[in-house]
Amino acid sequence: MKKNWFFETDNVVSDLRVGYRIKRKIFSKKTEFQQIDICQTDKFGKILFLDGLTQAAERDEFIYHEMMTQVALMIHGSAKKILIIGGGDGGILREVLKHKIEEAYLVEIDNEVIEASQKYLSTISKNSFNDKRVKVYIENGFNFVKQYANYFDVILVDSSDPIGPAKELFSSQFYKNVFKALKKDGIAVFQSGLTILQKKELKSVYEKNKKIFPIVKVYYASVPTYLVGDLGLILASKKIDPTRISKKTLDKNYKKLNLGTKYYNPEIHFAAFVLPNYLKDALR
Amino acid sequence: MKKNWFFETDNVVSDLRVGYRIKRKIFSKKTEFQQIDICQTDKFGKILFLDGLTQAAERDEFIYHEMMTQVALMIHGSAKKILIIGGGDGGILREVLKHKIEEAYLVEIDNEVIEASQKYLSTISKNSFNDKRVKVYIENGFNFVKQYANYFDVILVDSSDPIGPAKELFSSQFYKNVFKALKKDGIAVFQSGLTILQKKELKSVYEKNKKIFPIVKVYYASVPTYLVGDLGLILASKKIDPTRISKKTLDKNYKKLNLGTKYYNPEIHFAAFVLPNYLKDALR
Repeated sequence: MKKNWFFETDNVVSDLRVGYRIKRKIFSKKTEFQQIDICQTDKFGKILFLDGLTQAAERDEFIYHEMMTQVALMIHGSAKKILIIGGGDGGILREVLKHKIEEAYLVEIDNEVIEASQKYLSTISKNSFNDKRVKVYIENGFNFVKQYANYFDVILVDSSDPIGPAKELFSSQFYKNVFKALKKDGIAVFQSGLTILQKKELKSVYEKNKKIFPIVKVYYASVPTYLVGDLGLILASKKIDPTRISKKTLDKNYKKLNLGTKYYNPEIHFAAFVLPNYLKDALR
Repeated sequence: MKKNWFFETDNVVSDLRVGYRIKRKIFSKKTEFQQIDICQTDKFGKILFLDGLTQAAERDEFIYHEMMTQVALMIHGSAKKILIIGGGDGGILREVLKHKIEEAYLVEIDNEVIEASQKYLSTISKNSFNDKRVKVYIENGFNFVKQYANYFDVILVDSSDPIGPAKELFSSQFYKNVFKALKKDGIAVFQSGLTILQKKELKSVYEKNKKIFPIVKVYYASVPTYLVGDLGLILASKKIDPTRISKKTLDKNYKKLNLGTKYYNPEIHFAAFVLPNYLKDALR
């Protein structure tokens, strides 16, 4: 088989070009919303690209999906209704379903991401889309969340970058709608860009949320295939502070739930919120 | 000016190809030991490549150099004699000289790395090579350390990868020599490869040191331009456990020393030693 390369488009980090040696292209389609590609690699397993940018690789998707999900669900402790915006690959859904929840809504704008992921990336979604607790909506996430008030315990926003179809998910109006859609002890998590190269984007999400939520914290996950450093995540909470929760409670719940996480553990939970000086300064 | 690209060689992560858009090539030379290139980029500043692999970029070198240096020096508290093996760019030296030390030996195999770095990367070394406390030896680090016993407080091994001229610096015999060269409360730090893609190398350094030093701990730093996740560092210590030192003492010394670090702080110190599950498992 002829060895080949798949190069990421360079609209995020324009000074950097990253190519993956691929064994074969498994799927490639231009949908109404974006270009979807799924490629087989040796070192990273299968990789899902949207508009030419890595979204999830089998080798390390657990880091992103666990950190997007478990931090909020663990501090909430008894979340029943979860909303996932984006996340068509099903990785966050898989993590959410490890908890005793009642309903997980997944709102994905592009049905073809879900279909291709279920077909070719079932290692990520496992059997999550067949779980009875799951409701899938093929809709614009921005419009979807507007319709709800005081309904969700946790909202997880698995957006792609602030360009392309996810642009609205980085607006103040969206964060206000998320606030309204959450119950009084609700928690939201937003994917917010690379800590060192997208500091402005991270700061923008942080500041917009600070005007809406009483508790807003930055934490991060180092996801190898997102390259160029850590991915910044923002947790916005109405009541529960993720850094002040009792370590003992977290330890107890973590053991009891037997989540089988490969990255997340209660020590990582707290360590993820510890910011280096340059990030503290950037957020000031 | 014509825009150009510099692609890293792919001998570490063979499925990945990374290119930097460069404004110009500042220096390029094949020395007795390796190929040295220094390129100017927009987003990352100047980058030093050895044998086609990124060693230091102006934009984020502080992360690597602070984490290689400050963790050991802060827990030691009164280190006077320091040995740096490698580190010809002077970044570790700069960090070491922020402390009240008496002597910093820098042993670099390739004089041309030092010369080129002083000439073109003075933002990294600052004026460190002119400090009276500094002694530079152009020698093989493996042979150099053999000659010492009970002499150094801290030894920092800023090796390149376990291929090329740094190969001997990943051997058990080298670690034994380092142990011998350290005083009875001495501490060594070894650059040990990427945590997710070079798990075997990391485990190998860890296990070899475990047979020699009473205290061996893995910690990590996320250095954007090293790409593909975190860089694993190994701290091997004769007496002081970096995770059991008093936070209060660390806070006090950190304030007193006024290190001006952009990444390191006492919270990061402890967080850096918190391992995700997959790494704990890998080291078991």
